[in-house]
Amino acid sequence: MRYEEFTIEGRNAVIEAFRSGKTIDKIFILDGCQDGPVRTIAREAKKAGTIINYVAKERLDNMSETGKHQGVIAFAAAYEYAEVSDILKAARDKKEDPFIFILDEIEDPHNLGAIIRTANLCGAHGVIIPKRRAAGLTATVLKTSAGALNYTPVAKVTNISATIDELKKEGLWFVCGDMGGEIMYNLNLKGPIGLVIGNEGNGVSRLVREKCDMIASIPMKGDIDSLNASVAAGVLAYEIVRQRLN
Amino acid sequence: MRYEEFTIEGRNAVIEAFRSGKTIDKIFILDGCQDGPVRTIAREAKKAGTIINYVAKERLDNMSETGKHQGVIAFAAAYEYAEVSDILKAARDKKEDPFIFILDEIEDPHNLGAIIRTANLCGAHGVIIPKRRAAGLTATVLKTSAGALNYTPVAKVTNISATIDELKKEGLWFVCGDMGGEIMYNLNLKGPIGLVIGNEGNGVSRLVREKCDMIASIPMKGDIDSLNASVAAGVLAYEIVRQRLN
Repeated sequence: MRYEEFTIEGRNAVIEAFRSGKTIDKIFILDGCQDGPVRTIAREAKKAGTIINYVAKERLDNMSETGKHQGVIAFAAAYEYAEVSDILKAARDKKEDPFIFILDEIEDPHNLGAIIRTANLCGAHGVIIPKRRAAGLTATVLKTSAGALNYTPVAKVTNISATIDELKKEGLWFVCGDMGGEIMYNLNLKGPIGLVIGNEGNGVSRLVREKCDMIASIPMKGDIDSLNASVAAGVLAYEIVRQRLN
Repeated sequence: MRYEEFTIEGRNAVIEAFRSGKTIDKIFILDGCQDGPVRTIAREAKKAGTIINYVAKERLDNMSETGKHQGVIAFAAAYEYAEVSDILKAARDKKEDPFIFILDEIEDPHNLGAIIRTANLCGAHGVIIPKRRAAGLTATVLKTSAGALNYTPVAKVTNISATIDELKKEGLWFVCGDMGGEIMYNLNLKGPIGLVIGNEGNGVSRLVREKCDMIASIPMKGDIDSLNASVAAGVLAYEIVRQRLN
């Protein structure tokens, strides 16, 4: 696993990078450039949520490593996603029951980074995120993960529900954090476990929730609705840690 | 307790607001305006870390409520800080042992907001922050607190160590989260308690740490150093909640 930013230069290379699903953090386009390929790039960038900067030729020339930027330079993340099997293997190698975080559409990269950081420190073997409607592994995520992204494998899957089904065959139990469940202290969270954390605004989606064996609730006494998603993930994860220590 | 943004218009009013220590979130100055009072305002804004926007006259005219902006409009936070005695009274009114968060120089407003949110939900009676070297209550904090700032009193004190001494006279015990302490599950965290959370980079300062009765450590298995400050605050706070429920 590694993460570093590298530049992609030239129109075709950048279009190709977008089409292959690479995470492009930002893109620099020659100001005033309006031809077909450049418009395609701008459109792909918008679709992917990539920041576009329109800059002068001198700036591009300075940034360029190849000297052949053709008016377009992209900064891409070289993070390699893991496979779910890599995560299970990490647990096996340590002779531990698997402990996996499943993030059901976490959208804020700061939350994603903080959660990967928590996953690393609480001894989880990996993090699973969905391909769609979720933050990917950008430079912001690396930064807020405090480097944990370099150690904790993150796998990207097409369908969270299907992945849960597969992992159940491997003996994992699934608990999601949500309101209206059992107070977390009263649940048995030992053994091979997947901790499911829902979206910041909407919580765990209905389909994923139905796949879970347990719904864990954090006791709440206050006047507002819910904890920050990364705080909730931390509180639930450490209840698992506490039970595993006993 | 309330929080809303209001505008302060005119040179003297804005200078006065800065000098009285009001939290100014942002400031709009007429582009090209360079006279003495405007330079004073820019200097005060820089000192306070307020964002300055230089804008055209039409923009100021549109924002102005009084029509007499003199080239300067500031957006200030109308949040009223509580006193430490208000926090103790909140606990007494609920017939509960006081449970107070003490934040030793939390700098990131997102962390401050998330921690106030946690304080509200875990049933703490208030949050104490220092006057210096710490994030104040800005619009960002209100937003990330998810409105908790409207319910949970926040007091600002000159000297955290002195405040701890005063609160010890009220019967509170103090625990700080830090490395090298006792694993939190092994400590007795029941009764009137102050939970001390340190700075994002440096942890709890030496003087404050020495004032604490206990040092609580979160068990860490990973490859990196520490949890995000707001996650650590949540994990520690909920260990207190768990012990109080038993």
